[in-house]
Amino acid sequence: MAKKITTRAQNFSTWYQDVIDAADLADQSPVRGCVTFKPHGFAVWENVQQKLDRAFKETGHRNAYFPMLMPESFIKKEQEHIKGFSPELAVVTHAGGKKLDEPLVVRPTSEAIIGYMMAKWIKSYRDLPLLLNQWCNVIRWEMRPRIFLRTSEFLWQEGHTAHESKQEAEQETLQMLEIYRKFLVEDCLIPVFTGKKPAHEKFPGALTTHSLEALMQDGKALQAGTSHNLGQNFSKVFDIKYLNQENKQEHAWTTSWGVSTRVIGGLVMVHGDDDGVIFPPNIAPVKVVLVPIWHNDNEEGQVRTMLDDCFKSLTEFIDPWQIEIDNQHNLRPTERFFHWVRKGVPIRIVIGANEVKANQLSIVLRHNRQKISISPNEIKSCVKNAIKQINKELYERALKFRDENLTRTDDYQEFKKIIKNKGGFVYAHWDGTTETAEKIKNETKATIRVIPNELEIETGRCIITNKPSPRRVLFAGAY
Amino acid sequence: MAKKITTRAQNFSTWYQDVIDAADLADQSPVRGCVTFKPHGFAVWENVQQKLDRAFKETGHRNAYFPMLMPESFIKKEQEHIKGFSPELAVVTHAGGKKLDEPLVVRPTSEAIIGYMMAKWIKSYRDLPLLLNQWCNVIRWEMRPRIFLRTSEFLWQEGHTAHESKQEAEQETLQMLEIYRKFLVEDCLIPVFTGKKPAHEKFPGALTTHSLEALMQDGKALQAGTSHNLGQNFSKVFDIKYLNQENKQEHAWTTSWGVSTRVIGGLVMVHGDDDGVIFPPNIAPVKVVLVPIWHNDNEEGQVRTMLDDCFKSLTEFIDPWQIEIDNQHNLRPTERFFHWVRKGVPIRIVIGANEVKANQLSIVLRHNRQKISISPNEIKSCVKNAIKQINKELYERALKFRDENLTRTDDYQEFKKIIKNKGGFVYAHWDGTTETAEKIKNETKATIRVIPNELEIETGRCIITNKPSPRRVLFAGAY
Repeated sequence: MAKKITTRAQNFSTWYQDVIDAADLADQSPVRGCVTFKPHGFAVWENVQQKLDRAFKETGHRNAYFPMLMPESFIKKEQEHIKGFSPELAVVTHAGGKKLDEPLVVRPTSEAIIGYMMAKWIKSYRDLPLLLNQWCNVIRWEMRPRIFLRTSEFLWQEGHTAHESKQEAEQETLQMLEIYRKFLVEDCLIPVFTGKKPAHEKFPGALTTHSLEALMQDGKALQAGTSHNLGQNFSKVFDIKYLNQENKQEHAWTTSWGVSTRVIGGLVMVHGDDDGVIFPPNIAPVKVVLVPIWHNDNEEGQVRTMLDDCFKSLTEFIDPWQIEIDNQHNLRPTERFFHWVRKGVPIRIVIGANEVKANQLSIVLRHNRQKISISPNEIKSCVKNAIKQINKELYERALKFRDENLTRTDDYQEFKKIIKNKGGFVYAHWDGTTETAEKIKNETKATIRVIPNELEIETGRCIITNKPSPRRVLFAGAY
Repeated sequence: MAKKITTRAQNFSTWYQDVIDAADLADQSPVRGCVTFKPHGFAVWENVQQKLDRAFKETGHRNAYFPMLMPESFIKKEQEHIKGFSPELAVVTHAGGKKLDEPLVVRPTSEAIIGYMMAKWIKSYRDLPLLLNQWCNVIRWEMRPRIFLRTSEFLWQEGHTAHESKQEAEQETLQMLEIYRKFLVEDCLIPVFTGKKPAHEKFPGALTTHSLEALMQDGKALQAGTSHNLGQNFSKVFDIKYLNQENKQEHAWTTSWGVSTRVIGGLVMVHGDDDGVIFPPNIAPVKVVLVPIWHNDNEEGQVRTMLDDCFKSLTEFIDPWQIEIDNQHNLRPTERFFHWVRKGVPIRIVIGANEVKANQLSIVLRHNRQKISISPNEIKSCVKNAIKQINKELYERALKFRDENLTRTDDYQEFKKIIKNKGGFVYAHWDGTTETAEKIKNETKATIRVIPNELEIETGRCIITNKPSPRRVLFAGAY
């Protein structure tokens, strides 16, 4: 018997763990804070990789791979950078049976090692722009791990580019932000606010950090991706110089940008319901499940014929390993259906003796349990249409929730109440100082998520200090 | 000016490093023994991944991801296993600013951690077979690193499966061996001998190790992949038990199998010539390079039109990022051609004013410099045919070399001479003892690569001890 899932209303955080278990996405591991990605969870990441990788390549980026270990001295070169990452480092002190002369740190991110290599590779403006990306694992030691959201080891992609000018670097930063936005909206069906982080929330060592912020169903925000303009900070420290077109040495302008496996946690918390996870079709590990039902050999023969035909039609536009045929004939049909509901498969198709007799199939959609009757020889177009419908409805549902949980207030008491009770994004005025942001964070746990590109700009007065504010910024409690 | 490449005859090992530099495949790194994969080299690995991953999925395997760090005690559980790997381990002793209670080792391979997790996941025969694969980095500390071939950190895939019976596990082991063979022969165009390793050359902890052995142009063999039947060794140590169909607890039978980035080194050493690397079309980072040449604006306009048409036709069956358009208009045409020769691009197409006027193009093949005249509107079918031709000729060339360097001998003096002077595979009789194999290794550096599936079986007498031998085995000096 399947374990009961705690409802979201009862306890969102227990629900989160329950639906991950029920969908068999991931497991704990014997090393504190390190997660094991099980096949159904890892396949989500593979789909994310496929979509993003294509977008990176189409915009001229190429993948490379840099060593996971780097001398401790490297990461200490950029002051802000080391301040940000030093508490989270894992350190290799012994290798090959000996104590190392200099300890090696496992990359928490690769600006340092990539900066060092870029300095070797870049000689003239002809070598620019250098547009690299790396898919890899990183380690940031976590004291309060949470599956997908904060784990000591996680998987991600980190883009690293070098350019001739500040403007070009900023253009690249914004281009990648837009690639992430499109991916989150169109493939993950997750509405996001994009924009700059305030100075105190920037990536350690960056000039500007742009971020994408999504709203989870418990009213907390999740940073779903970041894109940093690093200015000349890293190129000065690692001496990334090039001969410009006037034959003068200049420091390059660099960027970095990343999306990690925490996006899987975002997918769970944006779309899931009390019966389990719900995956958007473009990202779903299994896009369609076929459930054959029979009671005797005669039925089995007929059902198998229809099943084979359906499977074949679907493989014309879906990879065969993303179509499951349920074989749990030892279970009752409702248990079999529920198994795939909990796995978040967007579309279920039952094929039994009745379906064969009527020469009619039912498509059942995961996100709203809608049943659509179709004729078997139309399965291809019907499933394609169903996918379109799911894409539209799932996004609209998430957007509606997000918009209902976006509040504007000019009153700090109300601000506190909203953050405490309802959660969601609060769009409020702020005087621009780190002190005020810190005070709000200490009193409410809410932080400035982003200075959003999508919302109106109007002047006002800070909800705390009453000092002039050029525009509202977006606050939320966050993961 | 491009650096001159040492010829293979002058010094094979310098040639190897020279062609890697000339093709811009990889670079050293500040950490001893760790390599940096540059885009042109990493793209080879991406193509390898794509081909193998599809074959794994088509045979029911699914990808997962396990922690990179594991408690030191884990790897010590299987005695042979730790004996084999302990000299090469990298050890994390500090993390999150503190000394760890138990040191963590970076995976040199993941049998231990995956065995531990499998024991949690497998309850009954219904959970079997469990067919997993992982793409990841591993660390095995190297005292004598060599780019791609032996590096302290390398990338690979490691498959790990669990089964109900010994026969099923052996079937899986052989299935994966066959997938590797097909991939090496059909995509990498590398002829291989497959077969079992003798007991003393087995994977530490395995029951049987099957391997694929290829011959490099310097007469040394390279192990290009391995597939291990682990028997119940790991399942007993990690307690991977299942309830069988008769309701009895049994230990599962496990396998593991892997191919690593050393295959890139193999591609270089099997196909390269004195002008640089030569990549097989299915694996080439760039499949076609288009070289537009013009001397004035009028020519540029005409050339660009034809260039755009060609590019568009090619994208109908090649990913756009695997087609390069050469833009080095500051260089002379021959320099531009040579640039792509050194990068190993299988097909080059020049488009200049002459080509536009004659409405005719020349396809030049990298492996034999053959020129084929074609009409621009036939570019698609002509490039497809050229790819077929290259696949055939490149494989046949490598096979001819391999067969010319396979010797049979019954005389140990001749054996020593062959290994010393000519190299290659020597198919000779052996009495089956580790002592004799060790003696041969110490005296000649040649090891038993494999007991080959592809060669004739006949009884004879050991070349050293004159004791009866049931069949010849394959010796070679090896990487």
